[in-house]
Amino acid sequence: MAVSMRRALIGAPLATARAAHERLNNWLGLSVFASDNLSSSAYATEAILLVIAVEGSTRLLAAALPITIGIVVLTGVVALSYRQTVQAYPTGGGAYIVARENLGMGWATTAGAALLIDYVLTVAVSVAAGVQAMTSAFTVLQPWAMHLGVAAVLLIALANLRGVRESGLLFAVPTYSFVFGLLLTLGIGIVKVVTHAVPPPPEAVAPMAALGALPFFLVLRAFASGCAALTGIEAISNGVQAFRSPEGRNAAVTMLWMAGLLLTLFTGITVLARAYAITPDVTGGGHGVGETVVSQVAAAVWGGKNIPYLFVQFATMAILIVAANTSFADFPRLSAILARDRWLPRQLANVGDRLVYNNGILVLAGIAIVLLIAMQGNVHALLPLYMVGVFVSFTLSQAGMVRRWLRLRTPGWRQSAIMNGFGSLATGIVLIVVAITKFHPPEAHPIFSFTVDGHPFNLRAGAWLVVALIPLMVAVFYRIHDHYNTVSSQLTLIGFEEPPAPQQTVIVLVPSINRGIVPALRYARAMGHDTRALHIEIDPDDTPRLRDQWEQWSHGIPLLIIESPYRSLIDPLFRYLDEVQTEPNQTVTLVIPEFVPVKWWHKLLHNQSGLLLKIALLFRRGLVVTNVRYHLTR
Amino acid sequence: MAVSMRRALIGAPLATARAAHERLNNWLGLSVFASDNLSSSAYATEAILLVIAVEGSTRLLAAALPITIGIVVLTGVVALSYRQTVQAYPTGGGAYIVARENLGMGWATTAGAALLIDYVLTVAVSVAAGVQAMTSAFTVLQPWAMHLGVAAVLLIALANLRGVRESGLLFAVPTYSFVFGLLLTLGIGIVKVVTHAVPPPPEAVAPMAALGALPFFLVLRAFASGCAALTGIEAISNGVQAFRSPEGRNAAVTMLWMAGLLLTLFTGITVLARAYAITPDVTGGGHGVGETVVSQVAAAVWGGKNIPYLFVQFATMAILIVAANTSFADFPRLSAILARDRWLPRQLANVGDRLVYNNGILVLAGIAIVLLIAMQGNVHALLPLYMVGVFVSFTLSQAGMVRRWLRLRTPGWRQSAIMNGFGSLATGIVLIVVAITKFHPPEAHPIFSFTVDGHPFNLRAGAWLVVALIPLMVAVFYRIHDHYNTVSSQLTLIGFEEPPAPQQTVIVLVPSINRGIVPALRYARAMGHDTRALHIEIDPDDTPRLRDQWEQWSHGIPLLIIESPYRSLIDPLFRYLDEVQTEPNQTVTLVIPEFVPVKWWHKLLHNQSGLLLKIALLFRRGLVVTNVRYHLTR
Repeated sequence: MAVSMRRALIGAPLATARAAHERLNNWLGLSVFASDNLSSSAYATEAILLVIAVEGSTRLLAAALPITIGIVVLTGVVALSYRQTVQAYPTGGGAYIVARENLGMGWATTAGAALLIDYVLTVAVSVAAGVQAMTSAFTVLQPWAMHLGVAAVLLIALANLRGVRESGLLFAVPTYSFVFGLLLTLGIGIVKVVTHAVPPPPEAVAPMAALGALPFFLVLRAFASGCAALTGIEAISNGVQAFRSPEGRNAAVTMLWMAGLLLTLFTGITVLARAYAITPDVTGGGHGVGETVVSQVAAAVWGGKNIPYLFVQFATMAILIVAANTSFADFPRLSAILARDRWLPRQLANVGDRLVYNNGILVLAGIAIVLLIAMQGNVHALLPLYMVGVFVSFTLSQAGMVRRWLRLRTPGWRQSAIMNGFGSLATGIVLIVVAITKFHPPEAHPIFSFTVDGHPFNLRAGAWLVVALIPLMVAVFYRIHDHYNTVSSQLTLIGFEEPPAPQQTVIVLVPSINRGIVPALRYARAMGHDTRALHIEIDPDDTPRLRDQWEQWSHGIPLLIIESPYRSLIDPLFRYLDEVQTEPNQTVTLVIPEFVPVKWWHKLLHNQSGLLLKIALLFRRGLVVTNVRYHLTR
Repeated sequence: MAVSMRRALIGAPLATARAAHERLNNWLGLSVFASDNLSSSAYATEAILLVIAVEGSTRLLAAALPITIGIVVLTGVVALSYRQTVQAYPTGGGAYIVARENLGMGWATTAGAALLIDYVLTVAVSVAAGVQAMTSAFTVLQPWAMHLGVAAVLLIALANLRGVRESGLLFAVPTYSFVFGLLLTLGIGIVKVVTHAVPPPPEAVAPMAALGALPFFLVLRAFASGCAALTGIEAISNGVQAFRSPEGRNAAVTMLWMAGLLLTLFTGITVLARAYAITPDVTGGGHGVGETVVSQVAAAVWGGKNIPYLFVQFATMAILIVAANTSFADFPRLSAILARDRWLPRQLANVGDRLVYNNGILVLAGIAIVLLIAMQGNVHALLPLYMVGVFVSFTLSQAGMVRRWLRLRTPGWRQSAIMNGFGSLATGIVLIVVAITKFHPPEAHPIFSFTVDGHPFNLRAGAWLVVALIPLMVAVFYRIHDHYNTVSSQLTLIGFEEPPAPQQTVIVLVPSINRGIVPALRYARAMGHDTRALHIEIDPDDTPRLRDQWEQWSHGIPLLIIESPYRSLIDPLFRYLDEVQTEPNQTVTLVIPEFVPVKWWHKLLHNQSGLLLKIALLFRRGLVVTNVRYHLTR
C-alpha cells in the first residue's frame, strides 16, 4: 500500500538509461534557473525602500534610484564574470567546484557550506515573498501567510520528487507570465509618467541634491539590502549540466538574457516607485509586512486591483514558486557532489527511482519549513540570513576563476582574469558591507521587532547565525570526511594479507524441542563443522523431558545444558561464548531457531528472546548469528 | 547504564533456588492479604450513607445500621465459606482455580476475567481512598488528588518489582497501625457515647420505626453499595501458597482473624457515624468527594484534627496503600496462571530476575493509572465498577466448591456443601442486586454528575462497562488459547516425518570489493555447498573495476552480475531468488557482508541497505539470512 501511494504521488520509477534525456532547452532552462534571479526584483526595490523609509525618512526615498543603479552595475559585472565560469565549466561550475579545483578544499568546503545555506534561504525567501504577493492582493489571507508558505514548500518538494523535466514544463508558464506582465506594467507606467498622466506625488519628494543629507551608513545598509537583487544569479553556473549540449554555450546565452531582464525589471520598479511616490507598507508588524511595493506599483499603473493587476500578482507569486524550485534542483545536486567527495552523508548521493536525489529534496524542504516557521514567513527577516551565504559563494567562485586563469593562461586569459578579479573584488566588498551592516546591533524596528508574551524579539538579530554557521558546517564536513577516510583505509584491499582460514564452530540454541527447531538442527548439521547444541536451563523442571527427547531428535549433535540461576538467557550465553571463543582467528556461528507466525500480531503472544539475543550480540566479534525460521501455516 | 539504573531501583537479581524462602508468616500474611479487606471499612460505611443521604434523606441515616448488620452477616457467611476453600486448595485456590477444577473452562475463564478486573479496581479504589484520607486531613492537597494517586500506584509497582518479602516487611506497620488506631478511636467513641459525653445530634434522627418509609429500591442500592466491605475477602484464598507451611491451615486462621477484625471496624464506624449524626460530605462534586466519614468520626471522637486524629488518617492512608499492594501480589500471580494455561500472552508467566512477575506488575499499574485518570480519582465513581467483578468471582468460586463436595464426598461433605452453597447463593443474590441497582438509569447526582465544557457526564454510567467487559475478555482469552493451540499442534514432534535432507545453496552479496567482504566470502566458501556471489549493478560505471578485482579476491566463488535499471537492490534480488528457489525442499543461505563502525552514530553516515534487505526478506520462505560482520577498529 505504501508503494502504491508512493507511485501515485511521485510516479513510476525511471531507468538509469533515461538520465541523459532529462535535459533542458534554453527556454526551459531560463524558466528553471533564471527564475531565482528574476524573481528577486519582486523584493529588491522594497528592501532598499524599507531601509530608507524606516531608518531615514520618507522624504529621502529618491535615494533608492542611485542605489539601484549601483546594484545594476554590480549585477552586470557579476553576470559577465559568471558567464566565463559557465563556459569554463560546462559540466557544472558552482562555487564549490570552482573553489575545489582552484583554491583547495578549505575554501571549497566554505563555498559549499555557503551555497547550501544560500539554497535553503532561496526557498524560504521566495516562498515567503510569493505568499506576500497573494496576501497583498487578498488581505483576507494575511493571517494564513506562514501556513500557505509551508504548504507551498511541500508542493514544490513533491513536484521535484517526480523529476526535473516535468518541473521545467510545469514552471515555464509562470516565469514568462511574470516577465511579460511586469514589462507591460512598467512600459505603460513609464508612458503614463512621460505623458504626465500621473498626478504629482501627494507629498514633496526631496530633490536629488538633498541626498547628501543621508548618513553614509544608511546608504550602505540600503545598498546591502538591495543586493538581494543579485541572489540567484549564480544558479545557472551550478546547473550547466542540465542544459542541452553544448551545455556551456547554452548556459552562457541564458545567463546574459537573465541579467538583461533583471536589470530592466529592477530599475523599472524603482523608477516607477519613485514616480508614484510609493512608500513600503509596514503595517504588518512582525508578522510579515503588508502590501508589497510591486503590488502598489501595479495597482497604481493599472488604476486599482483589477484583472491586469491580479495577473501581475499571480505571475509574481508563480515566479517566486519557480525560484524556490531552482534550489530544489541545485541543493540536492550540490549535496550529492559533496557527498561523493565524502563531506556529507553518502545517502545524499543516492539517486531515487525517479532519477532525482530524493534525500536532498527532503532535507531541503525540511529545513526551509523550519526557517519559515521560525521567521514567521517574514521576507525581510529572512533576507539578512540569505545575503551572507550568497556573497561568500560569489566571492570564492570568482576568486577561484582568477586563480584558474593565472594557472592555465589560455588565450585571452588576461582580460578574463581582470573580469573575474573585478567581480570577486566587487562582491567581496559587498560581502564586507553586508556583514558590517547586518552586524550593527539591531535597534527596535517597526517590522523586525515585536513582542511575544511580553518578550522582545528582533528577527534581524539572527543574521550573525549564518556567519557562525559556515565555519561550523565546515567543521562538520571535516568530521564526516575523516570518518569516511578512516573507514575506507580500513576496507582497502591494497596491502591486505589474508589471515589463515578461520576455525569454524557452530552452536545451535535449543530452547525446547519441537518441530520448529528441526530445520535449525539440520541446518547446523549441514554446515559440517564442529557443531553443538546449547540449552540454557530457565526452568530445571523441564530438563529431564528435554534430555529424553534429545535422544530421538539430536541429529547427531551433542547437547550441552547450562544452568541459569537468574533465569536470564543472555548472561549464561555470553559466559559460554567466552569459553568457546578463545582463538582470535575463529568464527562461531550461533544458529537461533525461530518460528514465524502467520499474522504479525501473533508475535505479541510469544517471547521476543530471539530479537533480544540478536541485539545483545550485535557488537560481539567473531560471531555470526543465523536465524533459521520455521514458517507456521495457520 | 540502563542496567545499573535498574539495579538501583529494583535490586540485584535473585536466584530461582531462593523462591521457596520468600514465604510469609501469619502476621506478615495478614498485613499483605487481609489489608485489602480490612481497608474496605474506610469507605464501606460512607458508601451506604451516600446512597441514603443523597437519594433518600438525611433524616433516614439511621437505616445504615440495619443495612450494616445485614452486610456483616453476609461477610461472616462468605468468610466461613472461603475458609473451606483455603483448606481445600493449599497451593492457592482463587476463583479461577476452583472453577477450573469443578465447573469447566467456560466458567473458569469467566471467573478469571472477573478477578483480573477486581484486582485492577482494588488498586484504583484503594489508592483513591488512601489519597482521600490525606485530602480530608489536609484540604490544601485536594486539587492534587489524582496526581497523588498516580504517584502512589507507581511507588507500589516499584516496591513489588523488588519482590514480595520486602513488601511484607514494608507494609506490616501500616496495617497494624490502622487496626490499632481505629479500634482505639471506636473504643473511646463508644465509651463517650455510653457515658453520654457526646452532645445530642444537632438535628433529629428518625426513629428506627420510621425506616419503613425508605423505598425498597433505595435500601437495595444502599445494601449493594455497602457490600464494598466484602471486597478483598477472597485475597487470602488466591495467595495460600505465599504462606508458610502448613499453608492451608495458616491461611484459614488468618482469614478468620481478618473477618473478625473487619466486622468490628465496619460496625463500629457505622454505629459512631449514627451516634455523632455524621453525614457524608458531597462538597467535592465530580472531582472526588470532600471529607471522608472516617475522618469526620475520628475528628469527632478526638475532638478536632489533632495528633491522634492525624495518626488515624495516616494509618488509613497507609493500609489502603497496602490494600492496593494485595493486588500487586495477586494480579501477576493469576495472570501467570492464566498465561500458563494459554489464556493470556505467555510473557505474563515470565519470572523476572527478582523472582516476581514483572510484566503482570507493569500491566496492572498501567491499567490502574488509566482508570484513576479517567474517573478523576473518585472512590465512589470507581466502586460500582469494582462490585460486579468481585461478586462474579465470589459466586463462581463457591459454586465450584459445592460441585467439589458433591464429587469428592470426603468426610463432612454435607455440611461443607451446605456452607459453600449458602455462601454462593448469598453472593449470587447480591450480584443480582448490584447488577440491577447499578443498571438503573443514572440520574443527575451531586457527586457522580458534573459537566465539562457544557457536556454532561455521569460517572456511574460506566458500571455497565464491567458487565460487558467480562464476556469480551473471555472471548479474547479463547482467541489467544486457539492461537497457542494452533502453534503447538504445528510444532509437535508427535507423528512428525522428517523430510529428506534439503538442497543447500549459498549466495553471498557483493556490493563492492573491499576488506569488509573478505570474511563473508570465506564464510560462504567454508559452508561448502553450491556457493555463488551476486552483485546487483546500481552504477554500471563501477562494474569493470569490480570484475577486475574479482579475479584476485573471488576465493573460487563464481560471480554473477545482475542489472538494476531502477537502482533498486530488492527487486532484482527477489527476481534472482525466484529463479534459484525452485525446489520446495531447498534452503538458500543469503550471506550479507556488513561492516560495524566503532560508534553507533557512524551508522547514520552509511546506507542502511543491509537492514532494508533483512526487513524485505523477513517473510520469505526457505531462506536463511546471515550477516557476516567486519568490525572497524577506528
